[in-house]
Amino acid sequence: MSFSTFGRHVIADFHGVTEELLNDYDFLRNALYEAAHACGATVVGEQFNKFEPQGVTGVLVLAESHLSIHTYPEHGFCAIDCYTCGTEVDPEKAYRHLLAVLKPKKAFERGLKRGTGEITNLARNELKVVNS
Amino acid sequence: MSFSTFGRHVIADFHGVTEELLNDYDFLRNALYEAAHACGATVVGEQFNKFEPQGVTGVLVLAESHLSIHTYPEHGFCAIDCYTCGTEVDPEKAYRHLLAVLKPKKAFERGLKRGTGEITNLARNELKVVNS
Repeated sequence: MSFSTFGRHVIADFHGVTEELLNDYDFLRNALYEAAHACGATVVGEQFNKFEPQGVTGVLVLAESHLSIHTYPEHGFCAIDCYTCGTEVDPEKAYRHLLAVLKPKKAFERGLKRGTGEITNLARNELKVVNS
Repeated sequence: MSFSTFGRHVIADFHGVTEELLNDYDFLRNALYEAAHACGATVVGEQFNKFEPQGVTGVLVLAESHLSIHTYPEHGFCAIDCYTCGTEVDPEKAYRHLLAVLKPKKAFERGLKRGTGEITNLARNELKVVNS
């Protein structure tokens, strides 16, 4: 079996997220699994860490690439990557799920097309004020 | 302790890498650890998987964010992310290490600045033909 190298990578920074959510290991781990499910990806492994005094980082390794989150509760900030190869899994769906459950006041996102040559933008830079 | 949300994210696609290297779990795992060491990052966890009949995916979770690789040996392709927060760790050094050991015929890279508002380019798209 040969897999397509074509991939889409959604890169997002969330600002203005509730501090409690960004420190909640179980919530964040579940949110990433739900995001993987939302986009139809296959999870093959995970690595999550909780930092002291605050912050959680977590990665789901997918058959299709990875989902990751790094949180800075003291700043209400988290960085998200939803990267999936192939055309059957849409990383935007994983991203939309995380946006819905984390409810940032501001979300900055970029979309990149990978695996086929030059890494190009899927869409221009945009600022989405989703919960102001 | 509070960490800076400022981060730099090097996104790279390598084409024309030797198939054997891209299937060598131990080599790739070591390469990622060496890359983390090269940039002075602190590894706090890992998740590596070997796929059948080919391909390896691996993530090092860092105190500063993550390094990842996804390989497609049958296409001579791998996708690399070197994302580090803060100013003390330079993800470009991790990227340069992976470039040196994987020796792609062509490497496409993007650099993004994250964590401070709009996600902006660190440098324009560029194609580097490093081993043609």
